Amino acid sequence: MVHSVNDLKPIKVGLLGFGVVGSGTWTVLNRNADEIARRAGCRIEIVRIATRNPSKVSGVPGQVQVDDDLMALVRDPEIDIVVELIGGSTLARELILAAIDEGKHVVTANKALLALHGNEIFEKASAKGVMVAFEAAVAGGIPIIKSIREGLTANRIQWLAGIINGTTNFILSEMRRRNLDFATALQEAQDFGYAEADPTFDIEGVDAAHKLALLAAIAFGIQIQFDKVYVEGISHLAQEDFVHAQNLGYRIKLLAVAKHRKEGIELRVHPAFVKRNELIANVEGSMNAVLVRGDAVGETLYYGPGAGSEPTASAVVADLVDVTRMHHTDPENRVPHLAFQADALAEYPILSIDEVETSYYLRLLVDDRAGVMAEITRVLAEDNISIDSMVQEQVNDGKATIIFLTHKSREGDIDKAIGLIEQLPFVHSKVTRIRLEQLEK
Amino acid sequence: MVHSVNDLKPIKVGLLGFGVVGSGTWTVLNRNADEIARRAGCRIEIVRIATRNPSKVSGVPGQVQVDDDLMALVRDPEIDIVVELIGGSTLARELILAAIDEGKHVVTANKALLALHGNEIFEKASAKGVMVAFEAAVAGGIPIIKSIREGLTANRIQWLAGIINGTTNFILSEMRRRNLDFATALQEAQDFGYAEADPTFDIEGVDAAHKLALLAAIAFGIQIQFDKVYVEGISHLAQEDFVHAQNLGYRIKLLAVAKHRKEGIELRVHPAFVKRNELIANVEGSMNAVLVRGDAVGETLYYGPGAGSEPTASAVVADLVDVTRMHHTDPENRVPHLAFQADALAEYPILSIDEVETSYYLRLLVDDRAGVMAEITRVLAEDNISIDSMVQEQVNDGKATIIFLTHKSREGDIDKAIGLIEQLPFVHSKVTRIRLEQLEK
Repeated sequence: MVHSVNDLKPIKVGLLGFGVVGSGTWTVLNRNADEIARRAGCRIEIVRIATRNPSKVSGVPGQVQVDDDLMALVRDPEIDIVVELIGGSTLARELILAAIDEGKHVVTANKALLALHGNEIFEKASAKGVMVAFEAAVAGGIPIIKSIREGLTANRIQWLAGIINGTTNFILSEMRRRNLDFATALQEAQDFGYAEADPTFDIEGVDAAHKLALLAAIAFGIQIQFDKVYVEGISHLAQEDFVHAQNLGYRIKLLAVAKHRKEGIELRVHPAFVKRNELIANVEGSMNAVLVRGDAVGETLYYGPGAGSEPTASAVVADLVDVTRMHHTDPENRVPHLAFQADALAEYPILSIDEVETSYYLRLLVDDRAGVMAEITRVLAEDNISIDSMVQEQVNDGKATIIFLTHKSREGDIDKAIGLIEQLPFVHSKVTRIRLEQLEK
Repeated sequence: MVHSVNDLKPIKVGLLGFGVVGSGTWTVLNRNADEIARRAGCRIEIVRIATRNPSKVSGVPGQVQVDDDLMALVRDPEIDIVVELIGGSTLARELILAAIDEGKHVVTANKALLALHGNEIFEKASAKGVMVAFEAAVAGGIPIIKSIREGLTANRIQWLAGIINGTTNFILSEMRRRNLDFATALQEAQDFGYAEADPTFDIEGVDAAHKLALLAAIAFGIQIQFDKVYVEGISHLAQEDFVHAQNLGYRIKLLAVAKHRKEGIELRVHPAFVKRNELIANVEGSMNAVLVRGDAVGETLYYGPGAGSEPTASAVVADLVDVTRMHHTDPENRVPHLAFQADALAEYPILSIDEVETSYYLRLLVDDRAGVMAEITRVLAEDNISIDSMVQEQVNDGKATIIFLTHKSREGDIDKAIGLIEQLPFVHSKVTRIRLEQLEK
């Protein structure tokens, strides 16, 4: 019944792109070839590589064809699986759709592409009976797609909250640990290679939002809806708020939150106060973690490196093994791309940010005199915002910094109250507002 | 290509046992039936229940047959999958082997059975072309079997270290947090239902060793070798050592460690000092976590509830969905039971505890006078044990408590040194020895 590993025809892989993740995939697949074949039941071999800079490909033996003709690789009849690691969402989309058309399976790490065009891509793949695997697109080497899609199938997923962008987590960790301001911490992240020359997608939360759109789809059985994700980055965070967070027993993290409420689904990426004794608050540096709550299992957490050459390659190769195994399976008995059968997706409304409910950290500068506090708390109360705790701190010139932590409130109500508070004559600053995420037990 | 969920014939499940996990499995499978069918592509229905106490089965509609004839359920031709949740390793073994003989798939949460008879059971299952799924046997609702077996297939697993017994983790957390002694903390665990009336298997590390034998098999591609696991429990731990651990920046955890060294494989369960800033040191109460290091991915951690009715049921039902999907697949293209193809298992030597290398925490009571320290450190040095740090604490009667933290040493050398130290005339206690696990980055 069981064949020896070397009896079976190897699975032939074509690699599009040979950058950080592409070269890592080559390295891991070759270094661990025996170990991987002992698991997969046959050898998995990269037989062709196409990249815009073939001259930069090194360490690859002569029998592997290397050139810059990406589309020719996709159409090469010898190839069973196309691995797309060139990034971007124009050419990558064309190549993946062409691979599907050719009846080839695809493995990709391209979260931006799937966030924007995933619904189209998965639909075409299902129609053609091929697989598009994307473990590497979210949280690097952590098998989070597999865990949610296959490991938690018994559950209604109630919510998930992730630290799924290593660049911003590194910056936030350094801002806290070494009292750095944002610009300095960003510069360090760039020096260490954790942030790109143009860091916009990372620091403005867009990358995390791409990944959240994918996680929410597989958690709740909905279409990928990147355009409905509320996105707020970390570039506006002040050093001072890290000090207050520390004193109040919190850490500031860029959280990606998807929550299934009876009214609909919250999809949001923003900095958040998280209680320091929560495990996820202690995820530091460029590491990632995703906390998932299911109605049967309760809370589970998945932690590991969210980026980098070999960690991401680990996910790419795991997908190659999965695709190799399911290759011979009837398409209808494979794990569905988005966890739920394609004809069984739901259409829950996505809630606007106004309807989101969290607690809040509010900081403002006011005149340090009697009556000020009473007036502000009156405004908050009128907008249904109840206060959990309050700190007042003397500053110079007869002024004081006030910090409120609120109970759970509607974001619309908070915005209205902030608008009113900022018009009060004794308020001398914008109100700094950071959401406070109470990860319910 | 895709059928509507209700077009397909449901998968029929027979449930052996209706205790904590059995009733949880019934509840979850019924409460989330629609959600599960939307994922699995067909309905999964429990059609028959057999348990030694059928009168205790409640909330099950009349069309489900409930009786005490376990073997008749196994032989019922209507049933596709047998779920074994009766525990124990005699009758459960007979029932599972009979189910395999009948060509039925099996899902089980029975770690004791698999630790002792798993090799036989998986061999028979492979010969018969059926699956035996066991996600629920290790770490309750955490999809740790799936993550290692399918999510990390690109990697050579270098080591794993787990907190995989909730009872002992609860006891250790309470001993630390509230300065309780072992007996009091155990009593509380029993009162809360975290520990059984006879807690031996939990507190002596046997349950963790069962699970470790399974984890090591799927991590390294070896047979299940429970009899080779070194096992040491927590009942001998003194309150005093929790105080010293705290002061030195450590927590005491019952760790299950499997490590692949070039000389062979370490398999061991014992209390260990773990640095407080490690994520795994902050896993408290009855929660479980497994830290896995692979050569490509680096370190990943999986955290969640390790026991309980619905968390464990979550894993049972996830296995039911997997088996339902792979049911139609050629046996040779399914995920192998022990992660590696059955004909590709390796035979690495399992190292004896003497050959294990860790750091150590040593505590002893000595005369508080000049020369004592010199003499002890001389004995340690002669046995190749180098000291990382040392604390001395005055006690009454001209005596002092000395604590050493050592660098990495061979356990055989430590044992020899302890033997010599305990014979020194100015040493007035046994040497308390707790391993100190440096989870390498």
